[in-house]
Amino acid sequence: MSTPANFSGARPIIHPDDAVMLLIDHQSGLFQTVADMPMTTLRAHATALAQMATLAKLPVITTASVPQGPNGPLIPEIHQAAPHAQYVARRGEINAWDNPDFVAAVKATGRKQLIVAGTITSVCMAFPSIAAVADGYQVFAVIDASGTYSKMAQEITLARIVQAGVVPVDTAAVASELQKTWHRDDAQQWAEVYTRIFPPYQLLIESYLKAQDVEKNHEALDSERG
Amino acid sequence: MSTPANFSGARPIIHPDDAVMLLIDHQSGLFQTVADMPMTTLRAHATALAQMATLAKLPVITTASVPQGPNGPLIPEIHQAAPHAQYVARRGEINAWDNPDFVAAVKATGRKQLIVAGTITSVCMAFPSIAAVADGYQVFAVIDASGTYSKMAQEITLARIVQAGVVPVDTAAVASELQKTWHRDDAQQWAEVYTRIFPPYQLLIESYLKAQDVEKNHEALDSERG
Amino acid sequence: MSTPANFSGARPIIHPDDAVMLLIDHQSGLFQTVADMPMTTLRAHATALAQMATLAKLPVITTASVPQGPNGPLIPEIHQAAPHAQYVARRGEINAWDNPDFVAAVKATGRKQLIVAGTITSVCMAFPSIAAVADGYQVFAVIDASGTYSKMAQEITLARIVQAGVVPVDTAAVASELQKTWHRDDAQQWAEVYTRIFPPYQLLIESYLKAQDVEKNHEALDSERG
Amino acid sequence: MSTPANFSGARPIIHPDDAVMLLIDHQSGLFQTVADMPMTTLRAHATALAQMATLAKLPVITTASVPQGPNGPLIPEIHQAAPHAQYVARRGEINAWDNPDFVAAVKATGRKQLIVAGTITSVCMAFPSIAAVADGYQVFAVIDASGTYSKMAQEITLARIVQAGVVPVDTAAVASELQKTWHRDDAQQWAEVYTRIFPPYQLLIESYLKAQDVEKNHEALDSERG
Amino acid sequence: MSTPANFSGARPIIHPDDAVMLLIDHQSGLFQTVADMPMTTLRAHATALAQMATLAKLPVITTASVPQGPNGPLIPEIHQAAPHAQYVARRGEINAWDNPDFVAAVKATGRKQLIVAGTITSVCMAFPSIAAVADGYQVFAVIDASGTYSKMAQEITLARIVQAGVVPVDTAAVASELQKTWHRDDAQQWAEVYTRIFPPYQLLIESYLKAQDVEKNHEALDSERG
Amino acid sequence: MSTPANFSGARPIIHPDDAVMLLIDHQSGLFQTVADMPMTTLRAHATALAQMATLAKLPVITTASVPQGPNGPLIPEIHQAAPHAQYVARRGEINAWDNPDFVAAVKATGRKQLIVAGTITSVCMAFPSIAAVADGYQVFAVIDASGTYSKMAQEITLARIVQAGVVPVDTAAVASELQKTWHRDDAQQWAEVYTRIFPPYQLLIESYLKAQDVEKNHEALDSERG
Amino acid sequence: MSTPANFSGARPIIHPDDAVMLLIDHQSGLFQTVADMPMTTLRAHATALAQMATLAKLPVITTASVPQGPNGPLIPEIHQAAPHAQYVARRGEINAWDNPDFVAAVKATGRKQLIVAGTITSVCMAFPSIAAVADGYQVFAVIDASGTYSKMAQEITLARIVQAGVVPVDTAAVASELQKTWHRDDAQQWAEVYTRIFPPYQLLIESYLKAQDVEKNHEALDSERG
Amino acid sequence: MSTPANFSGARPIIHPDDAVMLLIDHQSGLFQTVADMPMTTLRAHATALAQMATLAKLPVITTASVPQGPNGPLIPEIHQAAPHAQYVARRGEINAWDNPDFVAAVKATGRKQLIVAGTITSVCMAFPSIAAVADGYQVFAVIDASGTYSKMAQEITLARIVQAGVVPVDTAAVASELQKTWHRDDAQQWAEVYTRIFPPYQLLIESYLKAQDVEKNHEALDSERG
Repeated sequence: MSTPANFSGARPIIHPDDAVMLLIDHQSGLFQTVADMPMTTLRAHATALAQMATLAKLPVITTASVPQGPNGPLIPEIHQAAPHAQYVARRGEINAWDNPDFVAAVKATGRKQLIVAGTITSVCMAFPSIAAVADGYQVFAVIDASGTYSKMAQEITLARIVQAGVVPVDTAAVASELQKTWHRDDAQQWAEVYTRIFPPYQLLIESYLKAQDVEKNHEALDSERG
Repeated sequence: MSTPANFSGARPIIHPDDAVMLLIDHQSGLFQTVADMPMTTLRAHATALAQMATLAKLPVITTASVPQGPNGPLIPEIHQAAPHAQYVARRGEINAWDNPDFVAAVKATGRKQLIVAGTITSVCMAFPSIAAVADGYQVFAVIDASGTYSKMAQEITLARIVQAGVVPVDTAAVASELQKTWHRDDAQQWAEVYTRIFPPYQLLIESYLKAQDVEKNHEALDSERG
Repeated sequence: MSTPANFSGARPIIHPDDAVMLLIDHQSGLFQTVADMPMTTLRAHATALAQMATLAKLPVITTASVPQGPNGPLIPEIHQAAPHAQYVARRGEINAWDNPDFVAAVKATGRKQLIVAGTITSVCMAFPSIAAVADGYQVFAVIDASGTYSKMAQEITLARIVQAGVVPVDTAAVASELQKTWHRDDAQQWAEVYTRIFPPYQLLIESYLKAQDVEKNHEALDSERG
Repeated sequence: MSTPANFSGARPIIHPDDAVMLLIDHQSGLFQTVADMPMTTLRAHATALAQMATLAKLPVITTASVPQGPNGPLIPEIHQAAPHAQYVARRGEINAWDNPDFVAAVKATGRKQLIVAGTITSVCMAFPSIAAVADGYQVFAVIDASGTYSKMAQEITLARIVQAGVVPVDTAAVASELQKTWHRDDAQQWAEVYTRIFPPYQLLIESYLKAQDVEKNHEALDSERG
Repeated sequence: MSTPANFSGARPIIHPDDAVMLLIDHQSGLFQTVADMPMTTLRAHATALAQMATLAKLPVITTASVPQGPNGPLIPEIHQAAPHAQYVARRGEINAWDNPDFVAAVKATGRKQLIVAGTITSVCMAFPSIAAVADGYQVFAVIDASGTYSKMAQEITLARIVQAGVVPVDTAAVASELQKTWHRDDAQQWAEVYTRIFPPYQLLIESYLKAQDVEKNHEALDSERG
Repeated sequence: MSTPANFSGARPIIHPDDAVMLLIDHQSGLFQTVADMPMTTLRAHATALAQMATLAKLPVITTASVPQGPNGPLIPEIHQAAPHAQYVARRGEINAWDNPDFVAAVKATGRKQLIVAGTITSVCMAFPSIAAVADGYQVFAVIDASGTYSKMAQEITLARIVQAGVVPVDTAAVASELQKTWHRDDAQQWAEVYTRIFPPYQLLIESYLKAQDVEKNHEALDSERG
Repeated sequence: MSTPANFSGARPIIHPDDAVMLLIDHQSGLFQTVADMPMTTLRAHATALAQMATLAKLPVITTASVPQGPNGPLIPEIHQAAPHAQYVARRGEINAWDNPDFVAAVKATGRKQLIVAGTITSVCMAFPSIAAVADGYQVFAVIDASGTYSKMAQEITLARIVQAGVVPVDTAAVASELQKTWHRDDAQQWAEVYTRIFPPYQLLIESYLKAQDVEKNHEALDSERG
Repeated sequence: MSTPANFSGARPIIHPDDAVMLLIDHQSGLFQTVADMPMTTLRAHATALAQMATLAKLPVITTASVPQGPNGPLIPEIHQAAPHAQYVARRGEINAWDNPDFVAAVKATGRKQLIVAGTITSVCMAFPSIAAVADGYQVFAVIDASGTYSKMAQEITLARIVQAGVVPVDTAAVASELQKTWHRDDAQQWAEVYTRIFPPYQLLIESYLKAQDVEKNHEALDSERG
């Protein structure tokens, strides 16, 4: 396809009230194999997705690939940040979409847009995404909240899913499409989400507050003290 | 789409008399989060866009995302280099295209081609670009006069906007499509624009002028002096 | 095309019972020219493909480009890992698809899906892939089990084959599409395949087994011994 | 388009008897601005294109952008390697396709396939390529025999020309599509071309010849001498 | 000197009961200028130093360079992790050692070994280190818990301080020289310190605990469930 | 030596009233050969040295290597930023210290400390530095205000000059050793110097001033406007 | 010291008959934290050390840091390649030299030169090396058969151990200092060792043997077959 | 030592009339293992050394390690550029200094300074350098005209040889210490040497000559032609 699949020409963007978030196989063992970005970045981005789903009231479905084996357990932050997330156990299927319970859970949300992240990217993220496109869903793949074993593997997968009609997005774009405006009561909480996606934002906030405090409190510069 | 949208098969190039330049959220705070290129490069490229818009007499529209907060003020070079630019304040909308004043300002130019740059790339640049395509505009996204938090995020965004029918361009291509020929009176000023885009060009000019001067003035090589 | 060619809209995935693996020109001399990934990675990935073809009972066809000259011999691991592989000698043709014996060998398998890897990527892998698409095959190009002389050359080739309708895949995706589930008797052997694709997986297995042994045998921590 | 333009579904490959090579603005000054690959690599690849055009008897057209100014002269290797090349002077037009003499020279060859390389990539290579597609030519852009000011600029341009229907190729692929087979009298000369594209090939040849000489002359290993 | 200064030939290692930790100018604004490592890494390492000082009962002295100006406030984690740390305000002196209060605070600890980290490395860390060596202290500079504006600047500074007799150390070495053995009651807390220095250690712990739990609870693999 | 030469054990730091700055061969042509850092960084650092010499009232001596030939003219910023600098023409000597006029100019300053930067690093900077050490000077080599043809060449030179007793420094360290304190009337001008050394500092200042203005003027956030 | 310690001016090289090899904490868990080189490289180098110790008949002592915990088990290759190696269990001491059994085992060999590798570099390798220097040993630290959490951490450690009088070596240098000459019966086995240190050597051998075979057997080039 | 050995405090520089150049094991096979710089760079630098030795009339001694085996033949450029070079065959000794003929050849020159380059760096270059220091020679090691299997291996070797008293130099420094001045009849030939060390110098010369020609011949800019 290589055009965004299943949009029928409509603007290919996320609609918060029609989207469900799928967080697949973000496991401590698999994270050791990730080499397309620092593992800490992946961990922060996956957690940011869970946080924003909570803020935007998106359903979240998680699953893991044989967490009793070397792949290891799900990282705890995801369910901590999205306590409403539903965990679906599989029976060994590599493609989560091959597990009937998983597909049923998605279907039960009644939503038509899937926001998908998974480790490893070309498998745990790409397989369900490609399958869901074939089943008529609008699919957004969060490439940088997924992780894989090489930068090249990530690039190959990006090309493959675009060719298949999946919309590629980065973590920040998902946040902003869900948030839409800073004119909202939970703006502070969204700002905190961005500090996970691009950590210098935290420094900006700290420096900003201090600069205002200095002005507010008429604090003297140390270098101008007597 | 993945073909250049809204060209109806016409050659997908910029027409200086039908284009307007949109410079979105190039703010001092947001620039601290940029990691897909050196921030100084981004700053120079954004300024180069403003310069070339002035030389080519393109309308320019600027806007900022909550410049009173941690995102910080617009970098001053843009309005310095394009004094005719029109600034449109938003009310918290992340997507500038969600702000009616912004869209109205674009519409008021009567032009059908948008040259868009914004920080951060996947949001401030990509959202209005994708929206404008849906509204029938021909959109050129200047990827390397936009900035974002990782090289991967830039690559994901490139893939997404191409999929959506936006034409990706680099800063030099915009300059050359606007300039068209060196056979013009302001050729020197265009040369200066390129020194911002690829700084070795400045060295070339300096060395060239010196080499000609040496010849012109019959200056001896230091190594051949008595 | 830029859509997956010859799928007629069907889900663009590998079917183990309709696929044949083509391993082209993985030669000791040519491997010295590879610079888009560590040569050891390429060697491991090519071997992994042969292993998984054996596990999944895929026919394998190999060939070499003038192995009597500087290009050097085929690396031995491929036929060691896939003893059932059929070697087809060429007569100097650079594009294996220009050699009638090679095409005949493919045709004789009766299969419609080709999984192709070759060194160098833009030539030995890409030429037969593009040709086979034109002849009606569904083609999967394993970019990271192919090798070439620069990262840029790899990226150019990725773009070219996607444009031509070939499906790009990484080595792990091929493995997982062939394996499908961990609920199978040869699961251990598949795990070993993954240790070749992302070597930290071997560490995971080693640490996992030790951790369980410690628990099983009530082994004390060295740091808690008397 | 994003499919190879003007092929009407035919296999998108180069036909040596229907192709002309366009080498645009490979100038000493502009080469100082190149940063997407080592300049020496670019210089070698551009020269390799000229060599292979000579071997394959392709017409070659060269041109330069104001070579009397800071852009500098054409590098001499190109006309040395392709003495039959035709140089077309422009009058300041940045896009060579805007120069009527240049287009006329192309048309005079009677050929329908263009192999294009130029510095800088997004301008001197991309503009004529996009224009020629619109005029019905089949265009192959040799990305790594073109040079530009950043890796990102190269990637943006790759995306843009693919979107426009140009076929991206690397230098090695051009060589091999022109050569087709090692079963030809000038095989040695083609081997020399590859040493320019991936220099380890020269080492392979040197080591290969020595190894055979040792065997032929029953030369003893130094370490086994008395 | 280029030998460890002031050791008089004794083994140049840290003695926990004779060392004091100096954390200098780890400020939100200055952190935006850091480019020799990811800022998040620097932030984690600086925090790890504070944590280990607390565990090892080392005195900690902090200071900041004009925190009322663009340099910004101290990052809060340091005093959070080392609540016993003493903050010394300066009066504009760039070299903390030029501030009499700072030197007095160091002297008051009665300790002869300084563990120093500071941002930026060549100034805030190096100046006091070089000065303290001249005053007879044994100085350990924690290069990777300091940050500076380029990798090259870090390397230059490493060479300079070694030349001056300062002992260079990384954050992990400081932790391990303070901890000495895993045979201690607070071993868990030290393990947590290492997760800040090399984050994969956290994954190791998570996977380890899960693997033991599986064994302990006779949990079946998902892939082996009925 | 590998200890700082000619300090006789004194603290190896810069004394502004005993230092002279030598800026050697910063020429437009030679700058095209620089590859150990972005050329724009080198240009900014060299200019920053000239600026700080002016602020700290240091004598400055410049020279060039055959500026009438391919090496090109001195970059103009240096004499612009240090109008009091004295230019010494050589007669072809590669090592400036081999030119009697140059050595005489240094001697005439009556100062014992040399701060040296030059392009290319291993030659124009290192040769005079090593020679001056032998003549009894205390020499500080500003490695990152010098430029050379590879990172490796820079590293080799760093090792060589340290071995010879030269003190290696980065540009920021020179600035701070000259400035000493923020408690001075020209603090603003020093801040500007740092924006050349680490450009994010400019963003910090811009954001800081804006944050204070917002507070001062009770400016509302755009996102909170009606 | 910064001169090779304990050599008393003698040539600082390895004497195979006076050296013992210490391989410390090469454990599956710790290997997951290694980031200064590919983990596979570290694993191959550590194994190569064990192999060469066996060939050169060097005593080998191994140890592990709490292998019952998250650090994981020793990688099995070491004892496989050096079956004569002696394993010394510790009791939680981080510095192996703090464990009396370990020091006793070293002393029992009666040798004065230590070849040390360990993971992580700054701790497990550096601590015993620095301690052994103080106890009068000549110590060679194999930096690239040790692994640590960042390239910077490796560089810091290199500087620290050199300052302390340890001789830094790479894995190849150890092999060649032990082997001394190719004129020996086990030359083939040493060649195999080098294939682990720089894997292209394996390709060289494969290509060499094939080239000689072709000559020996008068094998025709495929491209010259009828 | 870590001070330049055997200089007795004299300025540690090269004296052209007392130096001999040793080029060791620059062989086609070994070059395939080089990874600390592009192999083409190494090849150019080694050739540049031979060229400058010829220009400066330095004796040159070459040798190879078992060139009848996989290590391959010496690259031909060295003896082509230095036809006066003397080749010394070894008998399997890895350290050339272990070969009596080699040492005798060095001694026969009567010179006290050795300029050494060799592949691989830590062995073929470092071993003879360290040995020659012990025998009283002043040794200059040309690190970037030597090649090895990783950047880290190069860095380790740099540290080792500096510790042993060898003076590290880059290729450009050797050229300039031999050339001394541009005021000599063979200046053009030295300029050509530099084009091999930093290839942009060739572009500078080409652009310089063209710029002067344009001025000399009153050539019009193409963009200003009628």
